[in-house]
Amino acid sequence: MESLEQRRQRLMGPNVPTFYRTPLHIVRGEGVWLWDVDGRRYLDCYNNVPHVGHCHPAVVEAIARQASQLNTHTRYLHERVLDYIERLCAKFDHDLSQAIMVCTGSEANDIALRMAEAVTGKTGLIATDNTYHGNTKFVSQLSTRRPPIGGYPGNVRLVPAPDSLRPVGGDLGSQATVFAENVARAIEELEASGHGFAGFMLCPAFANEGLPCLEPGFLDPTVEVVRKAGGLVLCDEVQPGFGRLGDAWWGHEILGFRPDVVTLGKPMANGHPVAAVVTRPDVMAAFREAFGYFNTFGGNPVSAAACLATLDVIETEGLVENARDVGVYTLARLQDLSHPRIGETRGHGLFFGMEFVAEDGVAPATDFAEAVVEGMRDRGILLNRIGRKMNILKMRPPMPFSRSDGDLAVEALGEVLARMPQ
Amino acid sequence: MESLEQRRQRLMGPNVPTFYRTPLHIVRGEGVWLWDVDGRRYLDCYNNVPHVGHCHPAVVEAIARQASQLNTHTRYLHERVLDYIERLCAKFDHDLSQAIMVCTGSEANDIALRMAEAVTGKTGLIATDNTYHGNTKFVSQLSTRRPPIGGYPGNVRLVPAPDSLRPVGGDLGSQATVFAENVARAIEELEASGHGFAGFMLCPAFANEGLPCLEPGFLDPTVEVVRKAGGLVLCDEVQPGFGRLGDAWWGHEILGFRPDVVTLGKPMANGHPVAAVVTRPDVMAAFREAFGYFNTFGGNPVSAAACLATLDVIETEGLVENARDVGVYTLARLQDLSHPRIGETRGHGLFFGMEFVAEDGVAPATDFAEAVVEGMRDRGILLNRIGRKMNILKMRPPMPFSRSDGDLAVEALGEVLARMPQ
Repeated sequence: MESLEQRRQRLMGPNVPTFYRTPLHIVRGEGVWLWDVDGRRYLDCYNNVPHVGHCHPAVVEAIARQASQLNTHTRYLHERVLDYIERLCAKFDHDLSQAIMVCTGSEANDIALRMAEAVTGKTGLIATDNTYHGNTKFVSQLSTRRPPIGGYPGNVRLVPAPDSLRPVGGDLGSQATVFAENVARAIEELEASGHGFAGFMLCPAFANEGLPCLEPGFLDPTVEVVRKAGGLVLCDEVQPGFGRLGDAWWGHEILGFRPDVVTLGKPMANGHPVAAVVTRPDVMAAFREAFGYFNTFGGNPVSAAACLATLDVIETEGLVENARDVGVYTLARLQDLSHPRIGETRGHGLFFGMEFVAEDGVAPATDFAEAVVEGMRDRGILLNRIGRKMNILKMRPPMPFSRSDGDLAVEALGEVLARMPQ
Repeated sequence: MESLEQRRQRLMGPNVPTFYRTPLHIVRGEGVWLWDVDGRRYLDCYNNVPHVGHCHPAVVEAIARQASQLNTHTRYLHERVLDYIERLCAKFDHDLSQAIMVCTGSEANDIALRMAEAVTGKTGLIATDNTYHGNTKFVSQLSTRRPPIGGYPGNVRLVPAPDSLRPVGGDLGSQATVFAENVARAIEELEASGHGFAGFMLCPAFANEGLPCLEPGFLDPTVEVVRKAGGLVLCDEVQPGFGRLGDAWWGHEILGFRPDVVTLGKPMANGHPVAAVVTRPDVMAAFREAFGYFNTFGGNPVSAAACLATLDVIETEGLVENARDVGVYTLARLQDLSHPRIGETRGHGLFFGMEFVAEDGVAPATDFAEAVVEGMRDRGILLNRIGRKMNILKMRPPMPFSRSDGDLAVEALGEVLARMPQ
């Protein structure tokens, strides 16, 4: 009989990514829990899409109610999308006051990059060298998960990503300066090559790069370099946004810089396909003038209802405060774990990284990290890996994650580490 | 007090498209009907997103049920998306047996174009010269609604779109041949310029181009030219797909050609943001090998449930048969209407065009068409315009559109035309 994996390959083709050596067959979710087809329960320490918890009834009800009333595009007027944009923009402490609603983070980043083009009239783009910003052809040219066919186009420059253990320039104290110098050099190259410089796109938590520990102000020299060159700072908040980091609604607040454009995605409506680009009126006007943009599904009444309900739950259940409290608690417990292969344990809010290294304390311990992920899965705890060499454990649970959930994860991790070779 | 339009401009920026001189404020939908904020009812003769009718309870219930059970990505295994792809692919009469699920038609076309790149190793693309295939930066380079900043890139060639009243080459009888000759010339240019030829993307109803009357076999010479050059035929079924044309599930069946890749979008899940790319295993394998593609929301259990429910309703309510029956009936009634400005009334299934022309019988009567659209709106009938000069009335109602709905629309149109200057 054909297995689910065989059927999947027959219908979806080869190389369709799954998690784990033997993929999970998940059939039900609730809060921070997932159940597989055999009824086994897993603590979800990985998924950020179900931001306010799997299948949160308030979001499900909002979707069902609005879907039964009206679901049409924004070529007709409707209050709900405006109510949402108004509340969303109020979450930003500076002059980002307008938004475009789309369906995926990729669509949002595809627009953000064009905003930089529209404002500057230039096409040169900079990103970090181990990042992922989405899957449209345009956006994927910034990603390094798989270099584009024919190599990176001439208008793209990648700069070395910040790193806690192997700092850019070799020294943690000067990493911020050297990082900015590399951006300045990339800008010079783009200008010399005739592309000019349009913008720098980054995740303010450098989440795919490995979630390095960075001090507030780390990006100040870089932002100054970008601004001086007339470019835009494009901030991809798809992972750190919506309170994930506990101390603030947005990742850029933690570092203390003010992006020109912010993109939002996955957690925005707890799984409903919606995303957004938030920016200043001058940037929006330049984009709207240059590109005749319309998105059929983007910002429809059901999407807006799902977004509003998600925002409501974050506020009424105090999930940002919870991320701060449980984040601090769990990070401390994670940092109490010891094993010679642990190079650094770091985190902010409900976003944790544990980097595994070889005996020299620097070389990435990729296989070790994979074994830990598999060991945790065997103990019913779902998490994953990030980093240039996939040697960094990534924990990014749904936001209602409690201290006792943290205890469960930490205790299981302690057991897994205890059985790993020293 | 701030109006809804002012608020919209404040929050979404300038140039956000709406329908009508004074936009509608719609608050409720059911079947083929929409209601505005003042309780006025409108017959929807335009929207194809609510394919099986606005707020169809079976689709709403499927979404609500699945959203309350599980909504996660496809990195875990789940039957529902496979059940859907299997049923979807069974609707194709040839070897298109695999699919990628995404969130928007734009994402689907962005992939389809890359499939042509992956199979051929070339980058040259051809489209018709008055088309729209989506809003990512890559896909929008094929669209002519607004030419890209800096002009069309060197790897894109646009060929004149087929036309009922102003045939390519000047003669209806030879239009198919001349159309193919233009494609052949574009291929030669792309090859001479070093880009090579990857694929030709088209809507098989040429819906944005004006929905011209074309005989079965029209594209045969073109498909032969494309195949001979080693390129792929990429068929954008976002508008004609899912039985819209009555006589078949897909637009390409009406013309009788076999595309290598088919993209699907808007009507697929009755408004839930989902889309797909359907293709042969060899094309899929080439794409999956060349691009490491993953879409977070694409094909999640809720999207799959919405798609399955929509497919169920199309089948159980006999909506393809209804499109055929009501289409033939309504087209005949539309063709009975007379006014000197009507150049041609055409259609297929529940997709109608009425082209308005000046006294010479050829020059587009754009203002006349706009006045008719506004007049119909005043009578509570929603429709719109297409074509190079926006002089063609476009009717594309939800699929449960009945004969008596057709009567209402035709009678209102008769009244509007009777009051228009001769």
